[in-house]
Amino acid sequence: MTLSAAANGVFAIAPTPFHDDGRIDEASIDRLTDFYGEVGCDGVTVLGILGEAPKLDAAEAEIVAKRFIKRAGQLQVIVGVSAPGFAAMRALARTAMEAGAAGVMIAPPPSLRTDDQITTYFRQAEEAIGEGIPWVLQDYPLTLSVVMTPSVIRRIVMDSQACVMLKHEDWPGLEKISALRGFQRDGSLRPLSILTGNGGLFLDFEMERGADGAMTGYAFPDMLVDVVRLSRSGARDQAHDLFDAHLPLLRYEQQPGVGLAVRKYVLQQRGVIASAAQRKPGATIGATAKAEVDYLLARVARVDRRAALSRPHAAE
Amino acid sequence: MTLSAAANGVFAIAPTPFHDDGRIDEASIDRLTDFYGEVGCDGVTVLGILGEAPKLDAAEAEIVAKRFIKRAGQLQVIVGVSAPGFAAMRALARTAMEAGAAGVMIAPPPSLRTDDQITTYFRQAEEAIGEGIPWVLQDYPLTLSVVMTPSVIRRIVMDSQACVMLKHEDWPGLEKISALRGFQRDGSLRPLSILTGNGGLFLDFEMERGADGAMTGYAFPDMLVDVVRLSRSGARDQAHDLFDAHLPLLRYEQQPGVGLAVRKYVLQQRGVIASAAQRKPGATIGATAKAEVDYLLARVARVDRRAALSRPHAAE
Amino acid sequence: MTLSAAANGVFAIAPTPFHDDGRIDEASIDRLTDFYGEVGCDGVTVLGILGEAPKLDAAEAEIVAKRFIKRAGQLQVIVGVSAPGFAAMRALARTAMEAGAAGVMIAPPPSLRTDDQITTYFRQAEEAIGEGIPWVLQDYPLTLSVVMTPSVIRRIVMDSQACVMLKHEDWPGLEKISALRGFQRDGSLRPLSILTGNGGLFLDFEMERGADGAMTGYAFPDMLVDVVRLSRSGARDQAHDLFDAHLPLLRYEQQPGVGLAVRKYVLQQRGVIASAAQRKPGATIGATAKAEVDYLLARVARVDRRAALSRPHAAE
Amino acid sequence: MTLSAAANGVFAIAPTPFHDDGRIDEASIDRLTDFYGEVGCDGVTVLGILGEAPKLDAAEAEIVAKRFIKRAGQLQVIVGVSAPGFAAMRALARTAMEAGAAGVMIAPPPSLRTDDQITTYFRQAEEAIGEGIPWVLQDYPLTLSVVMTPSVIRRIVMDSQACVMLKHEDWPGLEKISALRGFQRDGSLRPLSILTGNGGLFLDFEMERGADGAMTGYAFPDMLVDVVRLSRSGARDQAHDLFDAHLPLLRYEQQPGVGLAVRKYVLQQRGVIASAAQRKPGATIGATAKAEVDYLLARVARVDRRAALSRPHAAE
Repeated sequence: MTLSAAANGVFAIAPTPFHDDGRIDEASIDRLTDFYGEVGCDGVTVLGILGEAPKLDAAEAEIVAKRFIKRAGQLQVIVGVSAPGFAAMRALARTAMEAGAAGVMIAPPPSLRTDDQITTYFRQAEEAIGEGIPWVLQDYPLTLSVVMTPSVIRRIVMDSQACVMLKHEDWPGLEKISALRGFQRDGSLRPLSILTGNGGLFLDFEMERGADGAMTGYAFPDMLVDVVRLSRSGARDQAHDLFDAHLPLLRYEQQPGVGLAVRKYVLQQRGVIASAAQRKPGATIGATAKAEVDYLLARVARVDRRAALSRPHAAE
Repeated sequence: MTLSAAANGVFAIAPTPFHDDGRIDEASIDRLTDFYGEVGCDGVTVLGILGEAPKLDAAEAEIVAKRFIKRAGQLQVIVGVSAPGFAAMRALARTAMEAGAAGVMIAPPPSLRTDDQITTYFRQAEEAIGEGIPWVLQDYPLTLSVVMTPSVIRRIVMDSQACVMLKHEDWPGLEKISALRGFQRDGSLRPLSILTGNGGLFLDFEMERGADGAMTGYAFPDMLVDVVRLSRSGARDQAHDLFDAHLPLLRYEQQPGVGLAVRKYVLQQRGVIASAAQRKPGATIGATAKAEVDYLLARVARVDRRAALSRPHAAE
Repeated sequence: MTLSAAANGVFAIAPTPFHDDGRIDEASIDRLTDFYGEVGCDGVTVLGILGEAPKLDAAEAEIVAKRFIKRAGQLQVIVGVSAPGFAAMRALARTAMEAGAAGVMIAPPPSLRTDDQITTYFRQAEEAIGEGIPWVLQDYPLTLSVVMTPSVIRRIVMDSQACVMLKHEDWPGLEKISALRGFQRDGSLRPLSILTGNGGLFLDFEMERGADGAMTGYAFPDMLVDVVRLSRSGARDQAHDLFDAHLPLLRYEQQPGVGLAVRKYVLQQRGVIASAAQRKPGATIGATAKAEVDYLLARVARVDRRAALSRPHAAE
Repeated sequence: MTLSAAANGVFAIAPTPFHDDGRIDEASIDRLTDFYGEVGCDGVTVLGILGEAPKLDAAEAEIVAKRFIKRAGQLQVIVGVSAPGFAAMRALARTAMEAGAAGVMIAPPPSLRTDDQITTYFRQAEEAIGEGIPWVLQDYPLTLSVVMTPSVIRRIVMDSQACVMLKHEDWPGLEKISALRGFQRDGSLRPLSILTGNGGLFLDFEMERGADGAMTGYAFPDMLVDVVRLSRSGARDQAHDLFDAHLPLLRYEQQPGVGLAVRKYVLQQRGVIASAAQRKPGATIGATAKAEVDYLLARVARVDRRAALSRPHAAE
């Protein structure tokens, strides 16, 4: 089943699990995929920035994407196909869709500056991957340094046949969601799924502004699932209560650079992946940081028992 | 009394209060200064980035600095003197010190890239302002795009006669504090006060890593004062409890771009400044955002009564 | 006489002459101004990027601008008023116009990215300096990192009451001139003077594409005057012959960073300014570079006797 | 024969020839390779930035590299292996060396800022490609936005077993060559071949500062070969005379963005490649620009008959 503008809920951004020596850990891919399904995710996004995609060569990227897709079951899989050139983007997009992906995700290259450069890029990208492949527009200025106004996003979507979703991670971004939903109310923008990123740091209010859910990699996707559900059902205070209980840890995990190391460490503590290793160049966290995370987990666990990790880890 | 490497506690980063029409609001400067003293701050930093310093002309900058200094009483006043050139930097630094400032703060210009460019710049800056003026090194890569390793900071400090404080706001930055304190333990770095910024987003752990306090503009400096005190007294859990209660609001206020609008709105709600106006170009917050802030304030108030604002504001 | 969209010819970008100890050299300002008039310039632009404007404090900037204006005679003087904030921009613009400037020049701050950010900035800048002051739009992406499409330039000009000139220094930029002139042919852009910069590196073809002249600081403005005149009179080959004879030196002088040091050195050799000193931070050229420049001057002098400098300089 | 620190002369940066429809044009690769050999080049560098390497997928990159290598005869082939991650870099480096490449070239990723980040990156890159592969360090701040001081280059080279050449294209860069040669004179830097890029814009003086030759893509490598030879034999004036005759065209070809379109157009006019097509996203040159290039060619031909192109092209 391919991705549509009606998509909603939680799409987990998956890290790529490696063995300590840097080889791809396929067993952990399977376990991670199962985990996302079990906690109630609707989809999983692989080979994103967080997924260390640029550190894989072309053959490895295919292997990883196919492994997630094969295991995914009911989960929709979105494959990040951002690449320095369209040939590589097309090759991976085709392979992924043939293997059963629900759609692909495209981020703009950092060199784009003007509105026209940005809209032209996405027109060419859609042409490159070929007709009929649903794709997700990634809007992530903090990391990509490409700034898209709501109007530019509207132009991209309205120019396109197949852009069905926005991965929203502008920062700040609440007004952007309101602006895009306003465009839809005035009839100038067609239906578009908006899932929000930024580690979930503003998920509480993003839902209230009109987001359809989250696409982010916080190591407790189960919390994201609950907050999205509570918020959509109108249980505002409960949504915030649960969100706020996690916020100290979520904030810690959302740090640029070291965030992935924290996330892999927590997923490892939760028993989901075997190793927290990253490929070079990658950040690591030392004993002090691990103790800080453990302290935060214990504090979260006072409200959310899922953070009470039964698996104690060895000292460094 | 001039600033020294023994400085600690909370130095509030002061916004510059304007009337709705953009004129400087001197009565609000006085009230704001008094407020910082009443809530227990040790100092106040004026004409920083947050203080809209670049929007003032040279004469206005002097007026603002002198007004804060005159009112400050026991508070130490640090004046931001960052400028595109050394002549303007020197002029403001001299004026500020003559008026009674405790020290000045210098941020690097965004064009600096290599280690040598950075260390040379600060050597020239110190020479420009003249001997004997204690100064604060601002390390804020997210906004300034200048990246200083711990070793470069050490070179700057050890080259300098008068650099007594680091305004730490690298992000992530916990390991940087640990690295600098490690340099001091191994004897390669002389005493240096480290106050942390970034809106206070990591103050809880920054204190535990060895920070001497906070220099940031969160609209509840009273909370910052308490967390710094609790943390220094070893009351770890209480420090985190109070910090966590404020974190949802603090995070909201720390958004780039709109953060200052939120902060001025809260300070206005607290009755400290008369208007939330910024000079152009500036962000504003609309009714939805104000309602979000009010909701967050009400939630904070369940734990910290200081957030229960008695002064209801009119609807927009 | 104020600047209009009919302006053409050569506007020299003036360096700011300093004494060796960094003080402003007013006698050299006078001599430099006279020189520009004698060689046939139509105007002079002061306090630009090349003019080390950011290294002057506010009072000094006024002194420099007024000195040039007072001496200018028939030359139209454009004053660079770019500043981090509108208050400083307004103050200098008012002072300059009252002293007799023909207009002011405004460059965008490097933080601008989207088309809307750019057009909004110039609308606010025009509002800030006040009605009726003719201004020059500076388009210099290489240094300022702000990219304006021809359409954005059109929006800025058509939104404005008083933007009468484009300082064109996009690189590459030939197609941009053609595009803007095309807009005028199709009636969508009102009259606009286009003077080109970039050290004159493409002046030969820029004239053929429709530029009205040059606004740049090459140390032989006499050559620029001749090339503009030859090109406008249809003497294409002669224009290129003269231009090409200077190109090796012009290229050498157009190097970022050290270019100003070369330029001041040549102007000093020509007897126009007393010292080649720059304020810190500034580049210097050593003995090898000076010898390279001398060699290039000697080669130019085979075709253009004005480059045969009679004033030998002492060895370092 | 693998690359060594004794390498000198001219290494042409090869464009990748495409058919009009974007397919790789292998016949033109062969003709281009032959051409470089016939005009006296010592080597050829393929899959560089100019070679549109990021627009090829991994399989295509291998095909292109192997085709050049197979045809190269006496020419040493350097393969650009810069990649967003080490896995892709390693894969291409291994393939290239097995196919007979003389070495590989590595550019830093744009995200690197501090001296330590830069030196660490190249240490990891060398480790990734594996021992014993000679590599070229590319120093190209204008495009890559990574600034390396001479000291950092020295650290990289002295840390490395296998870095044998610097592709020097800092701008300005003359003093950098002098600084590096000074390091060698004082014994702190081991032997290192320095070939200069930047389209050859400063080749005349770069040779005099101590460069070993050129590595650049100017469409008249025959001129580069002559200038390098003349300069090394001490025929200074002749070297400059020939260089200066080409400079107007060389400057035109060195424009960022459109330069490659000009270069491919000239190579097509010279009968070396069949089509000037680039893959998207790519610049094109229109009728006016082509006529400008033709005019420049005719002017060069007055001094250098090789620019008198016998093959007239059809009007657009």
